[in-house]
Amino acid sequence: MRDATRHGEQSPPAGITPEELQLAARNHGMPLEALRHDVTPVGLHYLLIHYDIPTVDASTWRLAVDGLVRTPLSLSLEDLRARPTIRVPVTFECAGNGRARLSPRPVSQPWLSEAVGTAEWTGTPLAPLLRDAGLADDAVDLVFTGLDRGVEGGIEQDYERSLAVTDAARDGVLLAYGLNGQPLPPQHGFPLRLVVPGWYGMTNVKWLTRITAVAAPFQGYQQATSYRLRQEADEAGTPLTLMEPRALMIPPGVPDFLTRRRFVVAGRHTLTGRAWSGRGPILRVEVSVDGGASWSDTRVEDGPSPWAWSRWSFGWDASAVGEFDLCCRATDAAGRVQPDEPTWNLGGYANNAIQRVQVTVRTA
Amino acid sequence: MRDATRHGEQSPPAGITPEELQLAARNHGMPLEALRHDVTPVGLHYLLIHYDIPTVDASTWRLAVDGLVRTPLSLSLEDLRARPTIRVPVTFECAGNGRARLSPRPVSQPWLSEAVGTAEWTGTPLAPLLRDAGLADDAVDLVFTGLDRGVEGGIEQDYERSLAVTDAARDGVLLAYGLNGQPLPPQHGFPLRLVVPGWYGMTNVKWLTRITAVAAPFQGYQQATSYRLRQEADEAGTPLTLMEPRALMIPPGVPDFLTRRRFVVAGRHTLTGRAWSGRGPILRVEVSVDGGASWSDTRVEDGPSPWAWSRWSFGWDASAVGEFDLCCRATDAAGRVQPDEPTWNLGGYANNAIQRVQVTVRTA
Repeated sequence: MRDATRHGEQSPPAGITPEELQLAARNHGMPLEALRHDVTPVGLHYLLIHYDIPTVDASTWRLAVDGLVRTPLSLSLEDLRARPTIRVPVTFECAGNGRARLSPRPVSQPWLSEAVGTAEWTGTPLAPLLRDAGLADDAVDLVFTGLDRGVEGGIEQDYERSLAVTDAARDGVLLAYGLNGQPLPPQHGFPLRLVVPGWYGMTNVKWLTRITAVAAPFQGYQQATSYRLRQEADEAGTPLTLMEPRALMIPPGVPDFLTRRRFVVAGRHTLTGRAWSGRGPILRVEVSVDGGASWSDTRVEDGPSPWAWSRWSFGWDASAVGEFDLCCRATDAAGRVQPDEPTWNLGGYANNAIQRVQVTVRTA
Repeated sequence: MRDATRHGEQSPPAGITPEELQLAARNHGMPLEALRHDVTPVGLHYLLIHYDIPTVDASTWRLAVDGLVRTPLSLSLEDLRARPTIRVPVTFECAGNGRARLSPRPVSQPWLSEAVGTAEWTGTPLAPLLRDAGLADDAVDLVFTGLDRGVEGGIEQDYERSLAVTDAARDGVLLAYGLNGQPLPPQHGFPLRLVVPGWYGMTNVKWLTRITAVAAPFQGYQQATSYRLRQEADEAGTPLTLMEPRALMIPPGVPDFLTRRRFVVAGRHTLTGRAWSGRGPILRVEVSVDGGASWSDTRVEDGPSPWAWSRWSFGWDASAVGEFDLCCRATDAAGRVQPDEPTWNLGGYANNAIQRVQVTVRTA
């Protein structure tokens, strides 16, 4: 499996299995024309729901903060709303985005490139709440438990992820009860979810019910088994954490319903899209109209928050009719650049290879 | 192709093509646990977007009513909001729901069973507006044109569907500018869409820009080529109109992430779900826990409106551990009953064969 070969990035793979189709029918990406919104409207943001959306009665729901704390807490939604409030747009991307373009294809949710979205989250910062609970000196990890439950890898489990205490206390980490100015919709974690800016989506535990401080690194399924970069099943691998840089463009022109191929009328067009990275601000987005043979810089504008995607645009002189292979690629302040080709891994994570969009330019 | 054979309804099909996956990544069904909501929250309702979601500036947008009318109209969103208002829950289902369970599988959006949802629409009745415009005596069809544009069947087109004048003037048909108490989200047709209760989803033209009265039956692509029941490409076929009856259950217990197989703890459980038909009220919903060998009646309650799904429930004594094949089926007031097996057709439409849910009952 180490010598995995390239799959042509522009064409998605054949032979999707029944299991993958079931997941694709439930979960969904963000249609790429929605890149035009600074903040993604509800219903267009990508969704990955591991098990089922749980039913939660907000009037009896409580958030427990327990484990290695001096003052265990039990907080109602009203208690949380009474705490300091922040409202901030944050870009989320699924760690499995791009999975279905790997070959051989890891069998799970078969994302192409659309597992992204930016929501404006309303909530309360986590760090002061942890101070109120008083973390014990020997607390190493915080385990975040959701109310969603199911079987994965043969293990029946609550969805649980952890953060090191130092990461959980960072500026920007919040417990969110609102999305785009409204209560959290059921599918985004009502009544409360964790929001950790810059990290891949699985970090942002939905339907949060408990935060437990523990003295050793958490070894739960979603931490120690899933969401790790590895080549072989028997290696420990490295955990997925911060999002790699990625740029996406709004496919120009109009689509064919079935193939999604694009048709553009010859003339001047503005190509535009978004770019983000969990590892630093986006410094540069380049566009190629010849399949990556040559690249041009685009104009990059700040996004709606330091934790949200940047907008980019590029004037394309599409005066010649013919077939074009448009690409875009982002570079972040950490010096990371999107690769031409994905790096294969067993779980199909973090494939941030450049996007390619096939366009036919024709006369009106 | 006439002798299409049965595909086992419980397992979705293998070998989904790249084109189907692209569609499945954009469009999405309603996760079946959302059947618990009378009115589907925004973001959980199914979505089928033929081309791209268009960008619409509501301040300059107008609805034109023209063609064979005595008084052509040009209405702003404010004009429409100033007209009589109705607010009504209506169940929508995609005509292609169940397509991916047909064999051979028609290649298009590969729906399993989830292409359904119930929204509470706010809008103004169409009939009085047509009276204001004054339909000419020779008007036969009304053509509804959306702002979404793309290529389908090799033809570049605006999305257009028609209704016979008599159908368009029926009670319940409305022009909707609100969904679940909010302005229409972009993906549901902002700023205006047609809502025709009881009909399959393609009827409800989104991003509506024009209503044109014409003197002959409309022959556009979405009317004369697509959305027809036919066995062979060269036959005219019959148009898809009213929804066939269908019942769906909330899969009980907890799922396996990948296979979506269900695990239930032995004991007494309430099976519940929804049922609907465009052809009349739901009279009966039956449940089988033995794969359809025997059936029991369920308790059926009225839905949130005459145009919306009914709720049903059934007490299941799951005291024995083992494997169970749960099924449900609806009968409507028109006497139509869901079939055990689908009827194959070229476009993969109106497959309302009974749902099957595999469940493992085990001790806690």
